[in-house]
Amino acid sequence: MTTGVRIESALEAAVLRAESGAAPPKLAAAVRHAVFPGGARVRPQQSLAVAEAGGGENPVVADGAAAAIELLHCASLVHDDLPCFDDAATRRGRPSVHVMFGEPLAVLTGDALIVMAFDALARACAGAPELLIPLLTTLTRGVGLPSGIVAGQAWESEPSPPVEVYHRAKTGALFVATVMCGAAAAGADPLPWRLLGEKLGAAYQVADDLLDAVCGETQAGKPTGRDVALKRPSQAINLGLKEAHAHMQALVSEAVASIPPCGGAKGLKDLVRTQATRLAPKQLVRDAA
Amino acid sequence: MTTGVRIESALEAAVLRAESGAAPPKLAAAVRHAVFPGGARVRPQQSLAVAEAGGGENPVVADGAAAAIELLHCASLVHDDLPCFDDAATRRGRPSVHVMFGEPLAVLTGDALIVMAFDALARACAGAPELLIPLLTTLTRGVGLPSGIVAGQAWESEPSPPVEVYHRAKTGALFVATVMCGAAAAGADPLPWRLLGEKLGAAYQVADDLLDAVCGETQAGKPTGRDVALKRPSQAINLGLKEAHAHMQALVSEAVASIPPCGGAKGLKDLVRTQATRLAPKQLVRDAA
Repeated sequence: MTTGVRIESALEAAVLRAESGAAPPKLAAAVRHAVFPGGARVRPQQSLAVAEAGGGENPVVADGAAAAIELLHCASLVHDDLPCFDDAATRRGRPSVHVMFGEPLAVLTGDALIVMAFDALARACAGAPELLIPLLTTLTRGVGLPSGIVAGQAWESEPSPPVEVYHRAKTGALFVATVMCGAAAAGADPLPWRLLGEKLGAAYQVADDLLDAVCGETQAGKPTGRDVALKRPSQAINLGLKEAHAHMQALVSEAVASIPPCGGAKGLKDLVRTQATRLAPKQLVRDAA
Repeated sequence: MTTGVRIESALEAAVLRAESGAAPPKLAAAVRHAVFPGGARVRPQQSLAVAEAGGGENPVVADGAAAAIELLHCASLVHDDLPCFDDAATRRGRPSVHVMFGEPLAVLTGDALIVMAFDALARACAGAPELLIPLLTTLTRGVGLPSGIVAGQAWESEPSPPVEVYHRAKTGALFVATVMCGAAAAGADPLPWRLLGEKLGAAYQVADDLLDAVCGETQAGKPTGRDVALKRPSQAINLGLKEAHAHMQALVSEAVASIPPCGGAKGLKDLVRTQATRLAPKQLVRDAA
């Protein structure tokens, strides 16, 4: 099975469980809308690639961790799109959850997805219960307080957020959790992998800033020009487009260089490079070539 | 240590972890506002009472499970109070989180509390990792889809929710999880305890309907008369006040009768009766006496 199929299967299993029995139909439909069809599934792809590179032990656990990470990412998108935050009417080229199902169900969709994530992780660990505590606490660090993605979003409500801290929490923390969960699922020590997560998170933050500054809504699949409109810190604005793109490429190189020696290092390096090229706005990649 | 002190200590430890390091100050303050000072802490009290009745093994795990349940309850209150749901300006006699900190931080407070709950549970299981999977999946069943409290809240967005299913999810599911987690934390089989949770959940739903119908905002600590205003099913309205109160008392008796034979059964029965008396609106208790 390809990693793409493994990820979709694990997500489908989680969504099917949520839809089963006496589930309220609209919330069940909203949850499915939030998860399928997905975007590039960048985080679960990376998590599985690290698990494979680290030896590929416990594939069921690795799949569960990858699904949990993607469900948490989907939850953050649904809540970030709400009128009280980004007020984004589109996501992945389709109506966002609150536009399609209304605000109450969008709040509940995010809540349900967070719960589904931890549930998926726990179920995946049935055959290796000793892995659940390290995986779960790695994940909670990536999403919760004091410095996960929820904290990152909350920095936008502060008068002058420290930019580094804000970006590290909003984007970096989940990448760190992604990479470290992949390693932990494979039974490897996750600590040597932290730097890869930090570099990837930083690179993706620049990529997202560039996407917001350069692309139209059709290419991005979501409203753009929001950093200027919402006065959010943006490296595309601070550094200029060309400099920001060069900075992103440097971060990707540092990410590749940080990969610890392991059997599957080459494949993982290729994946990191390919994903990064795909994420940067096409017009900048062309200009830089 | 009394159970009250154990509960507040476990909650304080979770909130301190959330506030530590580089936490965004407003979100950290909002989380503390949502958790302290608490209400009657009915659910963690019951969870600990069941754990004690079941033998009192693993007190650290029992405390963690009790804190997790209360954090999830607090999360549901913060989100339920939002303008797009109940639009409640007060809670526990104080401004609700969105009134005090704004809507974005209220959404994030609920999210952070859900994550903190699973984190608290995982940390508490460090010395008994084999308990984490059953405890965690019992909790996710109580709060998520298809039939936990998130599903219960979502039924309010359906045109004609089946009343039994709605109430079982909105109130009953977390009581079932509360009681079963208490048993599981003590190393007992949680299944014989399910009926107690169901009966307690049903009793508390009637008590809440009565509170909404009979009390003013000062006594309830939150806006009342909401069931009529929001056209929500209410047993106080359907059965009439006197009948509904009698029904609640019958459910409490059934709850007490359902307690499985165990060492601490007597203390648990006393707690269930005392808590129920405290929860029913005083004027009805007086009239029925």
